[in-house]
Amino acid sequence: MKFFDGADTKIFALGGLGEVGKNMYCIMHGNEIIITDAGVIFPAGELMGIDYVIPDFTFLKKNENKIKGLFITHGHEDHIGGIPFLLTQVKVPVIYAPNQAVGLIRKKLDERNIQFKNLFVYTEETVVKFKNMSVEFFRTTHSIPDSHGICIHTPNGNIVNTGDFKFDLTPIGPMANLYKMSKIGKEGVSLLLADSTNALNEGFSTSESKVDEALQDIFIKHQNSRIIIATFASNIYRLKHIVDTCKKNNRKIAVFGRSMDNNLEISIQGGYIKNKDVFVTPEEANNLPPNKVCLLCTGSQGEPLAALSRIANGSHRQIKLQGDDIVIFSSSAIPGNAVSISRTINKLYLRGVKVYTNTSLSDIHTSGHASEEELKLMIRLMNPKYFMPAHGEYRMLKAHADIAVDCGIPRENTFVLGNGDVLSLYKGKITRAGFIQAGDTYVDGNRIGDVSNAVMKDRKIMANDGIVVVIANIDTTNNKLLTNPNITTRGFIQVNENLAMLKKLEDIAKHAINLKLTNNINYTDIKNQIIQELAEYIYDSTGRKPIILPVIMNIKRETKVTN
Amino acid sequence: MKFFDGADTKIFALGGLGEVGKNMYCIMHGNEIIITDAGVIFPAGELMGIDYVIPDFTFLKKNENKIKGLFITHGHEDHIGGIPFLLTQVKVPVIYAPNQAVGLIRKKLDERNIQFKNLFVYTEETVVKFKNMSVEFFRTTHSIPDSHGICIHTPNGNIVNTGDFKFDLTPIGPMANLYKMSKIGKEGVSLLLADSTNALNEGFSTSESKVDEALQDIFIKHQNSRIIIATFASNIYRLKHIVDTCKKNNRKIAVFGRSMDNNLEISIQGGYIKNKDVFVTPEEANNLPPNKVCLLCTGSQGEPLAALSRIANGSHRQIKLQGDDIVIFSSSAIPGNAVSISRTINKLYLRGVKVYTNTSLSDIHTSGHASEEELKLMIRLMNPKYFMPAHGEYRMLKAHADIAVDCGIPRENTFVLGNGDVLSLYKGKITRAGFIQAGDTYVDGNRIGDVSNAVMKDRKIMANDGIVVVIANIDTTNNKLLTNPNITTRGFIQVNENLAMLKKLEDIAKHAINLKLTNNINYTDIKNQIIQELAEYIYDSTGRKPIILPVIMNIKRETKVTN
Repeated sequence: MKFFDGADTKIFALGGLGEVGKNMYCIMHGNEIIITDAGVIFPAGELMGIDYVIPDFTFLKKNENKIKGLFITHGHEDHIGGIPFLLTQVKVPVIYAPNQAVGLIRKKLDERNIQFKNLFVYTEETVVKFKNMSVEFFRTTHSIPDSHGICIHTPNGNIVNTGDFKFDLTPIGPMANLYKMSKIGKEGVSLLLADSTNALNEGFSTSESKVDEALQDIFIKHQNSRIIIATFASNIYRLKHIVDTCKKNNRKIAVFGRSMDNNLEISIQGGYIKNKDVFVTPEEANNLPPNKVCLLCTGSQGEPLAALSRIANGSHRQIKLQGDDIVIFSSSAIPGNAVSISRTINKLYLRGVKVYTNTSLSDIHTSGHASEEELKLMIRLMNPKYFMPAHGEYRMLKAHADIAVDCGIPRENTFVLGNGDVLSLYKGKITRAGFIQAGDTYVDGNRIGDVSNAVMKDRKIMANDGIVVVIANIDTTNNKLLTNPNITTRGFIQVNENLAMLKKLEDIAKHAINLKLTNNINYTDIKNQIIQELAEYIYDSTGRKPIILPVIMNIKRETKVTN
Repeated sequence: MKFFDGADTKIFALGGLGEVGKNMYCIMHGNEIIITDAGVIFPAGELMGIDYVIPDFTFLKKNENKIKGLFITHGHEDHIGGIPFLLTQVKVPVIYAPNQAVGLIRKKLDERNIQFKNLFVYTEETVVKFKNMSVEFFRTTHSIPDSHGICIHTPNGNIVNTGDFKFDLTPIGPMANLYKMSKIGKEGVSLLLADSTNALNEGFSTSESKVDEALQDIFIKHQNSRIIIATFASNIYRLKHIVDTCKKNNRKIAVFGRSMDNNLEISIQGGYIKNKDVFVTPEEANNLPPNKVCLLCTGSQGEPLAALSRIANGSHRQIKLQGDDIVIFSSSAIPGNAVSISRTINKLYLRGVKVYTNTSLSDIHTSGHASEEELKLMIRLMNPKYFMPAHGEYRMLKAHADIAVDCGIPRENTFVLGNGDVLSLYKGKITRAGFIQAGDTYVDGNRIGDVSNAVMKDRKIMANDGIVVVIANIDTTNNKLLTNPNITTRGFIQVNENLAMLKKLEDIAKHAINLKLTNNINYTDIKNQIIQELAEYIYDSTGRKPIILPVIMNIKRETKVTN
C-alpha cells in the first residue's frame, strides 16, 4: 500500500469481494481505522472439516492501535460471524450495531465466553465522531430487522456502504429512509460501496409482503394437513410471518434446528416476533391433530444433517412423515446446493407428501437483495462520484459496475476490486494505491488458521496465478546472505522468455532480505518483507497475484527449512 | 359543492378520472383557483364526426374571476390539447409550462390564431406565489422531455400532482429529482394525486435506454434493408433515439404524418433532438438506396388514414413497399386498437415484409407510465396523508388505491373519484364535499359543444344511472308555478317502491324553481338551480348521477318546450 503524504483516506476490503460472505470493509485515515462488518463464510463442500472461513486479520493486527471501532450493518452471519475471532486476535475498542444485531452478537460472544463490554446499539439518530472521521446510519430494508447503511464522513469526502439491502416498498417492518438517503446524496458522496448479490437479476425484487399472501393461500388450501416449512433461519421477516400465519390459522409451531431456535429467541426478545404462545415442543406437536400443527425447520438447502433432510430420510427421531403432509420450501437454492436440494425433494415425493417450492407459481420466497432497478435507485439516490461494487462474486461485481455506468458514472470511476486492493481518496479524487495482505483464514472449531486444509485455497490461487518460491541461504554466523536468493516459479511465467523479470525478482528479494538481516533475525519479518515487496512488483508488472513462498535456510546451523 | 366556512381548500377534477385523457385538476382556496393541465381526449370510433372531447368548462366559466393560472405538467395532448378551447371560453390570466410544452402550446395557439401573451416557461427553480397558494415544480421522467410534477402549497396543507411519470433510472434525458421529491415528502404532503395509467402492471417498467439497444440491434441485423418505423409522435425520446440511431447507422430519415412533423420541429427548436441533417424529403428518400433510408411515420395504432396504413394498403402516393423492407412498430396497442393494428400488420405480411412488434422478444417499446413498484416508490417518497389516484380508467384508479393501501395509507384516506367530485381539505383533514358540474364537451372542428353526437354520451350515462325529467309549468303572467313540478324517471329507481323519494324530488325541484322565480325569468338559471339541488340530493341518497333534464313550460303564452 502506498502511503502518499498521509493526508489521504484509504479504502479496502478484507473480505466480501469476489465472494458472497465474510464481509469486512475498512476505511483508514491517518491514525484512524473504521471497520464495517466482520463476517464469516461457510465453506463449500470441498473444504470438509473446516467450520468457518474468516478474513485474514494480519493487517488489522499490525495496525490495531489505529482501530477506532467496528460498525455492523445488520445481524447476518456473513456480517457478524467473524466477530468472536476478530476480538480474540485484535484489540477493537468498540462495536456499534443495530438492535437486532446486538442481540445476535451478544449471544455469539456468550456462547464462546468472550467478555466484551463496549457493544452498543446505534439508531438512525446516532452520530459517532472520531478525530478525523464520523459515522452515521440510514435505515434500509433487507430480510432481517434493523438493517442499515453506513455513511462515513472523512476529511477527503463521504463514503457510503449500503450493507445488504433491497428496496421493499411494502416491507414487513419499517420502510427504508429514502429521505435520508437522498439527503446524504445531495450533500455529496465521493464513494459508494453497494451490495452486488443480485446485480445479475433484472427488474425489481418481489416484496416480502407478497410472500405473506402466498403462504396464507397455501395454509387455506391445505386446512386439514400438517404443514412443514423449511426456510433460512436468518430471514427474520419470513419467520415472523410464518409465526403470524400460524397464529391466524390456529396452528402451533414446533421448531427444529439450533440456528432457527437462536434467531427466534433473539427476535422474540427484541420484540420483532410476537405471538410467542404459538410455540410448542415437538412432543406436544405430535399430540396435536395434523391440522393444528406447523413444523418449522432448517434444511432448506438440503443440508444432510439438518432437520428436513432427516425427516425426508425417515431418520428423524421425533417426526415421521404422514401421507398428506405439506412441505414448503420458503427459500431459494444457493448456487451449488441444487443437487442436495433436489435429492431432498425427491425423497419427500417418494414418501408421498406434496412439496411447494419457489419454482411453483406462487411467490413463497423472495430475495433480501436488490435487483437491477433497485441498485440503480440506490445509485441515483446517492449520486456518488466513484462506485465500488461490494458483496458479491466477480460476475456480480462486474454486472453492478455496468449498472453504475448505465447510471452515468464514468467507467474509470468504477472499481471492481479484490480483497486487499486499496483505494486512496484524496480531496474527493480516488486512485488505486496498491494492496495489503488479505485472504482466507480457516477455522476448525475455534482454532484459527491452524488448518491443514488451507492447501486447498493455495491450489486455487496456484491454478489461477501460479507460485513464486524464494529460497534464501543465510549464514547465521554473520547474518548475511550466503548466495543470491534463488527464484523458482511454477504456473506463473514462461521462464526462458522472462529471464529479465526473474533477475528483477531476485534483486527485489535480495533487497528485502538485506533490509531485515539484523542481529536478531526474525524469520517472519524477513518472509513478510519478501512477500510485500515481490507482491507489489509482480502485481504492478503483470496484474497477477501468485502465491509467494519464501523459504529461508540457515546454513551454519543444521540445514533446516522453515516456511 | 358544499362551501363550509370558506376556509377550506377544494380539490376536484374536470377531466382525467375514469378515462385516460382530457386531464384537468383544480385546486380552489377562497377566491383563488389553480388549474393543472387542460387536455383533450381523442374520441373512440363510436363518436365518428367528433374531433376532440374536452372537459366541460362551465364551473370555470362561472368562477373565472377566481382563476389565478393554468399550470402544465408536460406537453402531451391529453394535458395541453384543451388549451385553445379553454382560452376562447374562459379568461385565464397566465399559463406556466415547462420548456418543451411551451413550444407545443405556442404552435397550437398560432395554428388557431389565438393571441395569448402570458405563457411562461417554468423550471425547477420557479416558485409562483399567489395570495393564499403557491406553486413549485419537480422534474420527473416520462416519454416527453421536461415532464414535471407540481406541488401546491395551500393554507390547509400541501397538494402534489405527479403529472404523468415513470421512474426511468437510466433515462434518455435528465433524471427525475428524487431529492426534491423526498424533501417535499419530508415537509409533509396532505394529498397526492398520481398517474394511474399502468397501475395494473406489476414490477418496474423497462427503461427507455433498453429500447435504444433493441432498436440498434435491429438496425445492425438488417443493414441492407429499408427500415420503416411507426411510433407515437408524442414520444419525443423515442423520436430522439430513432434519429440518433439513423445518424449512427448512416441512414437518412423521411417523415410522414403531420403530428410527427410538428413534434420533431418543436423538439429540434428546443434542442432536444440534434442531428437535424439526417432529415430528407420523401422524394430524396426514394432516390437513395434502401440501406440508406429510414421512413418514420404515424399509424402505429392502425389508424386508417395514417401514413403506415396507406403504405400497407399500397395506396400511399410516395411510398411503395419492397419485398425486403423491415417495418418496426415501436409502440404498444392502446386498448381498443388491437383489431386495426392487426389488420395493418396482416396487410404488411401479405406484401412480404418483415414486421417487428413489441410482442417479439426485443424491447422495442416501453411505456412512459409507472408500473406498480414505481407507483409505490412515488407514494413512499411523498408519504402523503391522503391519496387520490388520477389519470386513468376506474379499474386503474382502483388498482392504484389498493397499491396506496399496501403502502400503509388507510383505505378511508384514499379517494377513487369521478370528474366533478369535490374534496375539501381543511387543516390537513380531507372530507368529501359534494360535486360540481363536469362532463364531456364535444368539439367538431373548432365549434365547441354544438355537437349533436353528444347524445351518445347521454346514452352512456343513462345506461348506467338513468334519467330524471323535471317538468315545470310556469304561469308567466305572475311568474308562479302553475302546478307542482312533475318528476318522471327512467332507469333510475323502481318508481312504485320509491314514492317517498319521488315526493322528495318534487319538493326539492319546487324549492329550486321558486328560488329563481323572479320578475326577469332566466330559464338557464332555473334549470341550473334544479340540476344542482337535485343532483346533490340524489347523489347523497343513492350514490348515482343520473342525467337531470329540467323542462320548463310557459303556460300563459303559447305552450313551448325549452330544454
